Amino acid sequence: MVVDVTVVGTGGMGAAIARNLINAGYRVAVWNRDHAKLASLLEAGAVDVVHAREVFVSSPVVFSVLADDQAVREVILDSGALAAAPAGAVHVNFATISPALAEEAAARHAEKRVGYVAAPMFGGVPVAQAGNLNIVTAGEAELVERVQPLLDAISARTWPVGTEPQRANVVKVAGQVLIASAIQSMSEAVSIAERGGIDASTVVELFTSTITPGPVYKNYGGLIAAEKYTPAGFTPVLGRKDVDLARAQAASTALRLPVADLLSELLTEAVDTGHERDDWASLAYLQRRRDLSETDK
Amino acid sequence: MVVDVTVVGTGGMGAAIARNLINAGYRVAVWNRDHAKLASLLEAGAVDVVHAREVFVSSPVVFSVLADDQAVREVILDSGALAAAPAGAVHVNFATISPALAEEAAARHAEKRVGYVAAPMFGGVPVAQAGNLNIVTAGEAELVERVQPLLDAISARTWPVGTEPQRANVVKVAGQVLIASAIQSMSEAVSIAERGGIDASTVVELFTSTITPGPVYKNYGGLIAAEKYTPAGFTPVLGRKDVDLARAQAASTALRLPVADLLSELLTEAVDTGHERDDWASLAYLQRRRDLSETDK
Repeated sequence: MVVDVTVVGTGGMGAAIARNLINAGYRVAVWNRDHAKLASLLEAGAVDVVHAREVFVSSPVVFSVLADDQAVREVILDSGALAAAPAGAVHVNFATISPALAEEAAARHAEKRVGYVAAPMFGGVPVAQAGNLNIVTAGEAELVERVQPLLDAISARTWPVGTEPQRANVVKVAGQVLIASAIQSMSEAVSIAERGGIDASTVVELFTSTITPGPVYKNYGGLIAAEKYTPAGFTPVLGRKDVDLARAQAASTALRLPVADLLSELLTEAVDTGHERDDWASLAYLQRRRDLSETDK
Repeated sequence: MVVDVTVVGTGGMGAAIARNLINAGYRVAVWNRDHAKLASLLEAGAVDVVHAREVFVSSPVVFSVLADDQAVREVILDSGALAAAPAGAVHVNFATISPALAEEAAARHAEKRVGYVAAPMFGGVPVAQAGNLNIVTAGEAELVERVQPLLDAISARTWPVGTEPQRANVVKVAGQVLIASAIQSMSEAVSIAERGGIDASTVVELFTSTITPGPVYKNYGGLIAAEKYTPAGFTPVLGRKDVDLARAQAASTALRLPVADLLSELLTEAVDTGHERDDWASLAYLQRRRDLSETDK
């Protein structure tokens, strides 16, 4: 049984991507560690891939939408899935993983003569559902071209950054530093305003209509103004993971990142003070209460 | 000789504002410490106010476009200008000054029965020239209403934030933290990318087309990508002044700002390493060379 594309990992992002591929008319197979999470996609017409090691057998293209380095190792690289892949298959990896793992994965795919395209995404679940992701792609031009129609079905635009897959992951982790910094600096700006007698929604509207428009400041600014930290779109645990990936990538080139170093500390504080399941906008919860201690004065 | 409005301080911002007022058909008087800087405005039809202490005498409305707390004290509060002002005059202060001075200035104007409107601006010289400033206004509603047509002639929009003038200055210094943070975080993102083999212009275009659009990231991202740190639109000295105003405002409400504290240090580093006359985008110059030292590893 052969379909057009198999989606491996059907959490919030993977499910949205699979559904948009189905809606675009593609024959889609799906696999998830927790089989129960497949139900609505199977109802929508997806085909069930029962065994993880078969994901490359059911279709010429595999989209993996997994959480992190460990999940990519477990589900793709070390599960037997890659070992069982036929030569000529293509794997598109959407995860925010370390550039180092991307480089390793590319080499291991090449040994098996399986194509590897890195395709980390900007945009959360609602953006994925709307088919408006921005996808950073890197890999051999012929491979990227082959999967481009599938990517077009799930994104607003793709951003090719070269032939070495890890480049896309470098760009993605750099972008995560921008997002984390935007959340913390908006939290600081809001906390200044609030203690000066001006409400958060006024300044968030002002800033996001003038100097800092765009989806990141509008989304997180809105959550900060509303003090709405649940349900989490993205947690401080995941945020710290990504900022630490950026720091590790920088360190591998002997580069130091002062703001990213500080953001890692602040995200750790959020994790350690009970916000590990909240949205990472909960940086603002801590910021609003960040009193000058006597020793700081 | 009575005109509609007198513009005090005709540097880059003040000159652009005066010119747009002239172009909108207002009769405009101008004063500047360095009289030579008035030449092109006088040619354009502005009236010369020879003595600083006469600025409130020549028109019912005075716009002051000065650099900082010290300049506002020297030129307006302590020069004799305010002392000579007739009751019923209105002073619109565009400077990024401390909220504390705004509060003091409002009280001293009230003693003289002179109206005081705080009107700090977002946007640099090119934005001012295009008449597209965003102006944060605070003051008595009747006063703001009276000067609104003049503000409309020089801005894209005004953002009223209440009747206490210092509120506008609180919002402005909070916004400066957002801008400084955007410059440093874009510098860190670009430095990660470059050392990973991806050129700056690619990532700046990607980020400013997706997650962080808008004038701040586009302007400073462009300068960073081009490594163009002169001529300065705004210097590290001025940037540090504004970030330190935000820190002082926060401290006056017992609030601590981790990112702003770090930005103050990084701007000090820029000042101390020969970038004091460069644009504050020169934070990127330092960031690109920020090697992990042995002790950091």
